[in-house]
Amino acid sequence: MSRVAIIGATGYAGAELVRILSGHPETVLTVLTSRQYAGVRFDRVYPAMAGLVDIVCEEYSADRICNEADIVFMALPHQLPMAFVPDIIKHGLKVIDLSADFRFNDAAVYESAYQPHTAKELLKSCVYGLSEIYTDQIRTAQLIGNPGCYPTSVLLPLIPLIKQGLLDPATLVADAKSGVSGAGRSLSQASHYCEVNESFKAYKVAAHRHNPEMDSILSREAQKPVSITFVPHLVPMTRGMLTTIYATPAAALNVQDIVDCYTSFYSRRPFIRLCPSDGQPDTLHVRGTNYCDIGFKLDDRNNRLILISVIDNLVKGAAGQAVQNMNLMMGFDETDGLLHVPLPL
Amino acid sequence: MSRVAIIGATGYAGAELVRILSGHPETVLTVLTSRQYAGVRFDRVYPAMAGLVDIVCEEYSADRICNEADIVFMALPHQLPMAFVPDIIKHGLKVIDLSADFRFNDAAVYESAYQPHTAKELLKSCVYGLSEIYTDQIRTAQLIGNPGCYPTSVLLPLIPLIKQGLLDPATLVADAKSGVSGAGRSLSQASHYCEVNESFKAYKVAAHRHNPEMDSILSREAQKPVSITFVPHLVPMTRGMLTTIYATPAAALNVQDIVDCYTSFYSRRPFIRLCPSDGQPDTLHVRGTNYCDIGFKLDDRNNRLILISVIDNLVKGAAGQAVQNMNLMMGFDETDGLLHVPLPL
Amino acid sequence: MSRVAIIGATGYAGAELVRILSGHPETVLTVLTSRQYAGVRFDRVYPAMAGLVDIVCEEYSADRICNEADIVFMALPHQLPMAFVPDIIKHGLKVIDLSADFRFNDAAVYESAYQPHTAKELLKSCVYGLSEIYTDQIRTAQLIGNPGCYPTSVLLPLIPLIKQGLLDPATLVADAKSGVSGAGRSLSQASHYCEVNESFKAYKVAAHRHNPEMDSILSREAQKPVSITFVPHLVPMTRGMLTTIYATPAAALNVQDIVDCYTSFYSRRPFIRLCPSDGQPDTLHVRGTNYCDIGFKLDDRNNRLILISVIDNLVKGAAGQAVQNMNLMMGFDETDGLLHVPLPL
Amino acid sequence: MSRVAIIGATGYAGAELVRILSGHPETVLTVLTSRQYAGVRFDRVYPAMAGLVDIVCEEYSADRICNEADIVFMALPHQLPMAFVPDIIKHGLKVIDLSADFRFNDAAVYESAYQPHTAKELLKSCVYGLSEIYTDQIRTAQLIGNPGCYPTSVLLPLIPLIKQGLLDPATLVADAKSGVSGAGRSLSQASHYCEVNESFKAYKVAAHRHNPEMDSILSREAQKPVSITFVPHLVPMTRGMLTTIYATPAAALNVQDIVDCYTSFYSRRPFIRLCPSDGQPDTLHVRGTNYCDIGFKLDDRNNRLILISVIDNLVKGAAGQAVQNMNLMMGFDETDGLLHVPLPL
Repeated sequence: MSRVAIIGATGYAGAELVRILSGHPETVLTVLTSRQYAGVRFDRVYPAMAGLVDIVCEEYSADRICNEADIVFMALPHQLPMAFVPDIIKHGLKVIDLSADFRFNDAAVYESAYQPHTAKELLKSCVYGLSEIYTDQIRTAQLIGNPGCYPTSVLLPLIPLIKQGLLDPATLVADAKSGVSGAGRSLSQASHYCEVNESFKAYKVAAHRHNPEMDSILSREAQKPVSITFVPHLVPMTRGMLTTIYATPAAALNVQDIVDCYTSFYSRRPFIRLCPSDGQPDTLHVRGTNYCDIGFKLDDRNNRLILISVIDNLVKGAAGQAVQNMNLMMGFDETDGLLHVPLPL
Repeated sequence: MSRVAIIGATGYAGAELVRILSGHPETVLTVLTSRQYAGVRFDRVYPAMAGLVDIVCEEYSADRICNEADIVFMALPHQLPMAFVPDIIKHGLKVIDLSADFRFNDAAVYESAYQPHTAKELLKSCVYGLSEIYTDQIRTAQLIGNPGCYPTSVLLPLIPLIKQGLLDPATLVADAKSGVSGAGRSLSQASHYCEVNESFKAYKVAAHRHNPEMDSILSREAQKPVSITFVPHLVPMTRGMLTTIYATPAAALNVQDIVDCYTSFYSRRPFIRLCPSDGQPDTLHVRGTNYCDIGFKLDDRNNRLILISVIDNLVKGAAGQAVQNMNLMMGFDETDGLLHVPLPL
Repeated sequence: MSRVAIIGATGYAGAELVRILSGHPETVLTVLTSRQYAGVRFDRVYPAMAGLVDIVCEEYSADRICNEADIVFMALPHQLPMAFVPDIIKHGLKVIDLSADFRFNDAAVYESAYQPHTAKELLKSCVYGLSEIYTDQIRTAQLIGNPGCYPTSVLLPLIPLIKQGLLDPATLVADAKSGVSGAGRSLSQASHYCEVNESFKAYKVAAHRHNPEMDSILSREAQKPVSITFVPHLVPMTRGMLTTIYATPAAALNVQDIVDCYTSFYSRRPFIRLCPSDGQPDTLHVRGTNYCDIGFKLDDRNNRLILISVIDNLVKGAAGQAVQNMNLMMGFDETDGLLHVPLPL
Repeated sequence: MSRVAIIGATGYAGAELVRILSGHPETVLTVLTSRQYAGVRFDRVYPAMAGLVDIVCEEYSADRICNEADIVFMALPHQLPMAFVPDIIKHGLKVIDLSADFRFNDAAVYESAYQPHTAKELLKSCVYGLSEIYTDQIRTAQLIGNPGCYPTSVLLPLIPLIKQGLLDPATLVADAKSGVSGAGRSLSQASHYCEVNESFKAYKVAAHRHNPEMDSILSREAQKPVSITFVPHLVPMTRGMLTTIYATPAAALNVQDIVDCYTSFYSRRPFIRLCPSDGQPDTLHVRGTNYCDIGFKLDDRNNRLILISVIDNLVKGAAGQAVQNMNLMMGFDETDGLLHVPLPL
């Protein structure tokens, strides 16, 4: 059994990691850290876990972690991980960071969206953890920058088509809709029940920090500069993310072309499901699971392709993909701990 | 006092008409029809109205209506109104039809999206009731085809810019999100609580019947054929519609150009509110009101304009705009009965 | 026109006062105070009000208020009002306090549930503002302690029966369910969207501060000590409160007895609606209104009476009842500003 | 592997059985029946299950079932099971019926609440499947009447105390609150999204069919006639049931007495969790799981005990308890297939 530490275990992504890993056949949780709840049993913070997890949360200590863990999940806000990770890496542990700190190989791009980077020496070797795309690099990586939820929902449907040059990259628009858990457990007016319920709104319109992340990976896969228009919206629900993508084909494209492209690209990947032609993705179908369901429609009248993806923002968009990456890094079965049957409703 | 009949008063749009008109200073409700609830007091169907409306619902009867009403609101599914309206029009009553039956001057367009039209003789004179755009024609009309909720949310932000030729009409995409009440009171799996709650999904992707309605009005205003890509989505909330529109400017365009365009176009219109530059529309801000709030953002990186509109789909998207049209037709104050102060939450 | 100041205008009860009073025919809003938003226009805090309220929020100043207002609504957390009110009262203004500070004539009861009272001299003359019960005292009062939302929902259905001695006071149980807005606009884990959505729970079980308030009024009306078991619960919705009350009749009681009791007691009161025998109260029926709907059922098998009341916790449970009290104090029509037709859904 | 058939697999309880059993280590699903979806693949009805269940639904056929299954779950509305079950029982299969048809040993009680019973010969041997209470009888039963969701939530907290005579049975009141999925997948106005959202209401006040079921089991355990006042309410959420029970102790009772009673009674039962004294049950803590969490509070002022239980109405209140019963009947581990880690939110 591999020993796992979760740094920032009482945030939503951290707690989701605890949920998933508490059912993982090849790992054992050894350390949960939480600044706010140090000294408190995890299941007193999340009573849903009563009887299932009896670990007491503790303050972060590099020594403790290096002694007690083989694998470390960082579930902290960006800027903190780049302070902690170099030390852990030096001790030979594997690290999966759920923040933005290690998602960019180019420090300049990171710094344009976030702040000065203080661990640049790690940027060359860190791997972007989009499990289905960078599988081989992930297998041999020591440090993973786990993708943002929005980029995951945009990139998984786009990359197969972009890679084959099927779309005109100048025409990309992604209109994304996310449940409220994406904003995390920290208190804010934006997550206050009465401000969200019966409300639908856009935010950070064409100004979200996940936009450079998408552009950077799309450009890499297209092998030329790509810039996408991205608008996120907030949905009055807890979990789930649906992204609708609009693009003009680079050349004539029919339904079968697209089915073929996805089928060959994702044929052996257990967490990508292509919707039947008469069905459409629904966030409810992937709630609590690591699936990404993809549907599409050709708008022939306007020569435009419409792609629709859904994920659970906390699972495939965060903790689930992180565990999938750990499975790849450790040589476990890719689906270990992740075969949750979704609730039918 | 003008006498008003509501045909189909117990559906959601009908009930919303009852709510609004029960507070209207210039009209009195005389006839409410309902097939399902004939013989039942309206406030037994909608107990919220107990003590406020004591009318008993009745079967539809052209005679009754022509004797008892000066103005008729038709709140029925399409196909029924075109069977009833010719008779009512002949008797000289004014009619505002909330279905699609009288939204098109060209029967062929209607028939391509719906079914054969059985009252074509009225299509030449019926007026499309987009209150802020066709104000003058509405004032003198006898028969109004009240706009669909989606077209209202798409056309109000687009027309000022399209009319001035500021946008490239080949680039229009409208990504719309609607509360569940848009699907009406009729039972369906799609409106069943457990299938909607915690669910977000697209439906009728690039295949919604409101698409030809938008195209037809956009083409009229652009004075050339315009076709928009339109994708509706269902939001787990009762009321509200937000539409995000993407378009490429026809020529260089800055923020002030757009502010000026809207300001001059809508300056004296009481129900259009332009959001401040640091704010964004939110369905909660217009819930229960006849407002359409409009915001926008230029995505300079991609030379793309993003427009965002919100309405209450049952008010500005249906019953409220219908009453606004009645006010215009009857020479009442345009805001009569419609100055509901929104709930702050 | 009477001039009105609202102290604490940007909390939920304060904003609801702004909403209601902005449509009141006999008053004009002159001062809105807000510590957090001093210097900000009210409609920038609540964009729903854009175009409807253009007042800039300011810091509290007794001088300003005494110069600019005839009537003052205090919408602050308890403990603050008792510091401010004595000064205002001295200047002859009428005050309606929505906190608990002036709900008790007996300082000891207040102090057992809250903290030391610093304006005891006002407790003799302040009037408990349960509009339908203490109507005459309210008309002539200068200072009103506006009832809590839970006490309002418990007392309105109970008092007519208790007053007539129809119930055994030793058997009273009130099981109350409230929407989340009752917890106010202040941030807290308990009002965080993801902790409330799809969650139902009890809180402060038999330990809520509103319990002594209920007991105190019930005892006054029963003319003997009454103590009720009270358990509040949190419902995943924004507005609305439903309370289910269980009691054993003091003597044989039939349906007609209860109907007669309510009918005679509340016959001329515009905001109390008795449900028909085949209907039941629903929070949706009173949303955004000042109504209290009451239903009941005799459980003959167990000789137990079940009363059910619904109110909108922010309206009849707070701001609406406060305005109703102002109307009584000022000699306005009792319903001025309060005849909102509820949304049918 | 034991072969399992689910009759009525596309209703909510049926689909939940499919979910749970598709992860069960000792069984294999062989037959799923559905009148409405015969001929349709199950995962086309519930696309959440795409890739997980590839069985095609079929019409009910006793022959098929007797050939293909060892265990049968009946997830049909009452009245149908008593027509089908005798035949299946004759063939020696084990049957767990989720309807009310086999919950009563006394036909007269069943008939007073439902309709004439047509398989009375089975009522003597059928066992009431409240897993924690009738464990031994369940182990050896061939036919289980699986408890209703409300009775489960009322009986699990009450029976330990009632059995020890700690409560006065004349004082029992149960105020229950259920999510909407309890009403099933059949369309009805009561489950229509816009009628439920932002609504809270009681229904079937002191007139619910589950009341005789509770009374009958409480009387059995108390060894004297017990009748409880029961009022169910509808909560705007999909899953979850919280029941608040009020009772007067039969004699002086302190906190430790109650803790001891529960601890000894449920000490070895994996699905009962007693809340810590400073915590309270929350439906969110048991969502998607087979747990029943129990909390309590003594209202010393009024000498009244308050018990609070939560379950997921579709799991411990239906499909989960049914699988637990199968595990007992078949000699599997009691928790097989049921150790779902709840989502933290």
